Amino acid sequence: MSLSVQPGGSLLVAWQLTDRPVLLVGAGEIAAQRLAALLSADALVTLVAPCPVHQAIRANLSEYPHRITYHDRPFELIDIDAASPHLVLTAISDPVASRAIATHCRALHIPVNVADDPTACDFYFGAIVRRGPLQVLISTNGNGPRLASLIKEQIEVTLPENVGRAIEKVGILRRKLRERAPEVGGSTGKRRMRWISRVCEIWSFEQLAEMNVETMERLIDEGWEKDTIPYPRNFTRAYKLPSFPSVTSFMTGFASGLVVCTVFGFLTYRQMRQP
Amino acid sequence: MSLSVQPGGSLLVAWQLTDRPVLLVGAGEIAAQRLAALLSADALVTLVAPCPVHQAIRANLSEYPHRITYHDRPFELIDIDAASPHLVLTAISDPVASRAIATHCRALHIPVNVADDPTACDFYFGAIVRRGPLQVLISTNGNGPRLASLIKEQIEVTLPENVGRAIEKVGILRRKLRERAPEVGGSTGKRRMRWISRVCEIWSFEQLAEMNVETMERLIDEGWEKDTIPYPRNFTRAYKLPSFPSVTSFMTGFASGLVVCTVFGFLTYRQMRQP
Repeated sequence: MSLSVQPGGSLLVAWQLTDRPVLLVGAGEIAAQRLAALLSADALVTLVAPCPVHQAIRANLSEYPHRITYHDRPFELIDIDAASPHLVLTAISDPVASRAIATHCRALHIPVNVADDPTACDFYFGAIVRRGPLQVLISTNGNGPRLASLIKEQIEVTLPENVGRAIEKVGILRRKLRERAPEVGGSTGKRRMRWISRVCEIWSFEQLAEMNVETMERLIDEGWEKDTIPYPRNFTRAYKLPSFPSVTSFMTGFASGLVVCTVFGFLTYRQMRQP
Repeated sequence: MSLSVQPGGSLLVAWQLTDRPVLLVGAGEIAAQRLAALLSADALVTLVAPCPVHQAIRANLSEYPHRITYHDRPFELIDIDAASPHLVLTAISDPVASRAIATHCRALHIPVNVADDPTACDFYFGAIVRRGPLQVLISTNGNGPRLASLIKEQIEVTLPENVGRAIEKVGILRRKLRERAPEVGGSTGKRRMRWISRVCEIWSFEQLAEMNVETMERLIDEGWEKDTIPYPRNFTRAYKLPSFPSVTSFMTGFASGLVVCTVFGFLTYRQMRQP
């Protein structure tokens, strides 16, 4: 996070919804997208909308039956009180009903998102990039959803191939380090954070992604315990292909060998021709 | 948003905090970062922490006095009830006090973020990229904050130079279109969304960023009204520098001219030498 202030934005956060009740109203394409986002966050969804539902919703109803309670009927305001949800999301094409839901939620202090009505929203969605534990939100703050998805496509091609795996491995390394030095907060907490940060800076995404349990243990033994960051080359495996500089070195050596051989051969030849 | 489900993530959202009360506890570097993020979202912040405060906090206290209510004393749980905040953020180095704040917030149904204690958080922060109305959140879901900031640096160099300006201009175009065709939801709403999306796909970020009021009016008159998307070349300004293809055309023309001239001159010369 930065220390600079630029007013006019939103507070971008990663909401934790694991096993928390969320109410979703609607059964069209937008509702289907919302449902996918909620299931990706491990929420417990109450879905209220009369059939027919979008095919992606139907698929998720059968794939995640324990995560979704589906009511096949029109929504009523009492549904909000009944579900006592953490968040409410509506995606219906009736602006008056949407507004009524937003007003009711606000009275109950429940955050609400109303599709296609920014002024009634406590929070906005945006385009999302996902790679394992990595999630990227692209928000234009309601100015241009299509631009957000174009930017998303650009970001997707930029991300290192192993970025998801690298983050997973760093997560495991962090948990292992926390077992070794378990103090919460204080100077140890700060030293732990600094040490992991330095590992992430010195090791490439590819090298982090390739870490195995043995590498992590050695990294903590030879790094954390001695307050240093071992260079990845000390940890590389024997079967690794030679990198570019060593190919160059080989070629240089080979050429030098040829020259020496030729000179030596020529001198020998001249020596032999003399009587 | 996508229709695919990948469990194990968070729900990434852009929280709307304009003129809403938020309580911040702490005065160190993390608290300074949180304060900057809250001020960037136009929140009304109650800050509780005994002096000395981080220099960035001091700077913001004097720059945004109407946005921050500062209490120079240790935090007490009653502060939460007094502020009746929309969100609570704590960034103090006392894990026991942090936990007590989290428990109290949960009892009051107020979402809370506790720095350096993911299990006590209702929401996480991440690395942020900001370009005018564009905000990008990079979250590793608590696995590697340093990796998030490395990914942020990569994203920053990828983004088109005028991306912030392009989004601003599209926002203005959308509002102008909404004035022209003000229906909320329904078929007009869908057609509006589709038309703006197509403009964003056909016009480049640079061309969108260069739009002025006149261009927008023409775009709506000649595009929206006739249900087409005018190509940007029909809207370029007269004083625009020649682009690469026209330089090539000029050079080709110049060379052809030289050849014609030479041939004509040679023929004339031969004609003149004949008696």
